[in-house]
Amino acid sequence: MAATGGTNLPRVGGYNQAVVLDAIRVRGPVSRVELAELTGLTNQTVSNVVRRLLDAGLVSESGHAPSSGGKRRTLLSPRADGAYAVGIHLDRDAGQVVLVDLAGSTVAGRRFAVSAPGEPSAVVEQAARTARRLVGRTEVDPARLLGAGIAAPGPIDGTAGEVVSPPNLSGWGRVPLLSMFGTALDMPVALDNDATAAAIGERWIGGQKRAGSFLFIYFGAGIGGGIVLNDTVLHGDSGNAGEFGHMAVEPGDRLCSCGSNRCVGPYCSPRALIEEVFHRHGEAAAERIGLSGAAEALTEDWKRLRRAARRGDPAADEVARRAARLLGQAARGAVALLDVSRVVLGGEGMRGLETIMCEEIDAAVNGNSIARALDSVSVETSVIGDTAGAVGAAALILHGHYAPGLRLLTTESTPA
Amino acid sequence: MAATGGTNLPRVGGYNQAVVLDAIRVRGPVSRVELAELTGLTNQTVSNVVRRLLDAGLVSESGHAPSSGGKRRTLLSPRADGAYAVGIHLDRDAGQVVLVDLAGSTVAGRRFAVSAPGEPSAVVEQAARTARRLVGRTEVDPARLLGAGIAAPGPIDGTAGEVVSPPNLSGWGRVPLLSMFGTALDMPVALDNDATAAAIGERWIGGQKRAGSFLFIYFGAGIGGGIVLNDTVLHGDSGNAGEFGHMAVEPGDRLCSCGSNRCVGPYCSPRALIEEVFHRHGEAAAERIGLSGAAEALTEDWKRLRRAARRGDPAADEVARRAARLLGQAARGAVALLDVSRVVLGGEGMRGLETIMCEEIDAAVNGNSIARALDSVSVETSVIGDTAGAVGAAALILHGHYAPGLRLLTTESTPA
Repeated sequence: MAATGGTNLPRVGGYNQAVVLDAIRVRGPVSRVELAELTGLTNQTVSNVVRRLLDAGLVSESGHAPSSGGKRRTLLSPRADGAYAVGIHLDRDAGQVVLVDLAGSTVAGRRFAVSAPGEPSAVVEQAARTARRLVGRTEVDPARLLGAGIAAPGPIDGTAGEVVSPPNLSGWGRVPLLSMFGTALDMPVALDNDATAAAIGERWIGGQKRAGSFLFIYFGAGIGGGIVLNDTVLHGDSGNAGEFGHMAVEPGDRLCSCGSNRCVGPYCSPRALIEEVFHRHGEAAAERIGLSGAAEALTEDWKRLRRAARRGDPAADEVARRAARLLGQAARGAVALLDVSRVVLGGEGMRGLETIMCEEIDAAVNGNSIARALDSVSVETSVIGDTAGAVGAAALILHGHYAPGLRLLTTESTPA
Repeated sequence: MAATGGTNLPRVGGYNQAVVLDAIRVRGPVSRVELAELTGLTNQTVSNVVRRLLDAGLVSESGHAPSSGGKRRTLLSPRADGAYAVGIHLDRDAGQVVLVDLAGSTVAGRRFAVSAPGEPSAVVEQAARTARRLVGRTEVDPARLLGAGIAAPGPIDGTAGEVVSPPNLSGWGRVPLLSMFGTALDMPVALDNDATAAAIGERWIGGQKRAGSFLFIYFGAGIGGGIVLNDTVLHGDSGNAGEFGHMAVEPGDRLCSCGSNRCVGPYCSPRALIEEVFHRHGEAAAERIGLSGAAEALTEDWKRLRRAARRGDPAADEVARRAARLLGQAARGAVALLDVSRVVLGGEGMRGLETIMCEEIDAAVNGNSIARALDSVSVETSVIGDTAGAVGAAALILHGHYAPGLRLLTTESTPA
């Protein structure tokens, strides 16, 4: 992830504070004594840290635990209005802006159609204008706004803060989104690829449900992935970990932008599924579903195809299941490689296909792997849903700001 | 990894000591001032820690740096004889025992043929006897022997310290290798699957050359993998991360033990390659290479096939390249998923095939991936070579004992 800028809001200093705030956020309402147990810190340290978090307005005292004989314990909860972040998600021909609070709720959101997809500066200005208006309409204290996270289709150059010829943003070369948004928004900005941002958002919003490790399969304009291992997102050596779309599957006649015909991505793209309806089920099926097949109708066709799949149209169901089985093949390999016990499906492209995708991917990863004799893999839909990219973008800021040291919580088994 | 037992040798206490020892081991000879720069610790802390490491006999003063005007700096090096570990590698019909010192050198080693492969207790006794004899013949101070690491074909149940019906140890069900070796050897024992042990060994022995992240493709009796991310080995939720053999490739007629015909493993096994010579190149080619084709001649046939491939026999070269290309397909997906910039090839099965494997896997991972436009992937052979499993097993003990906190050295980029 690339990031820039500073903020006036007091940063939570150091490891202990990040750990305590995260524990309150994920487990709250929670008492100081429980926090000491959860974090391994002393009662005195927890008290000191909690005092600072109260002073900073990031947590609040929210009642008392039932008495267990002695003094009733005061409970602590995160203050939703303690901090906010903007999340901006760019995709092929549309974008989305959300405002997310410290509790992970989306306070406001707005989609926008991209009017000049091929011109990065116009897209950035349109997104920034939408973000400024969205924030302006809320009553959020500007001093509590930490910054804006940007989620864009990869690949990205994390060090430079640039996207690098993303296949899903046609006509873009190297575009320094980080500095462009920093200038346009005049606030701290962070950038990551959409699938990784979604995985960070899932970890941030999902709390205990997303503790540990998972593979996030992200379906936006294309197939991507994000990887969380031991509560830590995997960025990778070039900032592009999780490029799930290049996993090998049975080869066919669809070429990937990378030149291979063995990548799972192109067989599962919106365009591929729409074309499959025409090729495998004919004009009548396409007409029944309401598909135009024209390039400029891609977004509308894709929505109709997913709606048709959800209501059980046999042609839509069949092509979606074919794609889901290919994703399952790739997911099976990824799960064996990473040894994660959870796969999470999300992104706007999953909408309508959740049941089909869960069924087929579950069958693939749990059907026949010997490692799974030890433990089955849970296949679930995102706790965020189809705004995973935008909410994940906001989580880049919240997570980066308030949970920077969480990776240190994990431990490694060593000879005793 | 599962581990048991204790040792009388003073354990390096805490994070700072592990960091300083690892820096001396990897960068030595090195001065105290350089150590402070490398580790971020204060000069005073480094001096205190070094004093304790000198007292424990783990490092030594090894001369002086050239004067740069002021006082000449004393240089520190690891003491090879400061600590030792036994490494035991079990494979289908053979095993290997090594004794490795703190500097990573193999002091002694011995192979043994497994006389009763189907009987775990006989195999353990045979391996333990070999290990005791090997140690007995050296002049190693028993007080400096930290323990024995066991590398076995997976899957393993890391928590229980058991292998679980490993496909490459025919007839074995759940076998509690950890406790069996602990009893047989009467010293601390650690257990991991062979490919992960090899990756840990590569990180331990390779030092700076293996800093950061890499995928280790391990070729023993079958294809496995080990993953090191940000200097930390990935164990996975069940202790079986890196199961590279289940990555999907173009399906054919070879069934994996997991039931799928899409796993790369069975297409690249010794048996598969030998059979391919007969099927694709005929009896004459098999005779030229010296292949018997009989089940009981598998080990000898496999050696002859690899020797023939090394000397350029066209049939051997062709079947090896076919397998290497399939491994390349799988590696391409794994590299995209993990975003590692290095792939390391090792294990006894790679011996003779190094050039072919490097060429074909390099072509696959660097040929056409768009992410690689950012940075090419280095494909290299193991710094350990064909004893990677056994040396890796010893590294389980050395690494676990002397580098327990190293994962903490990594940092995550966060908004500034």
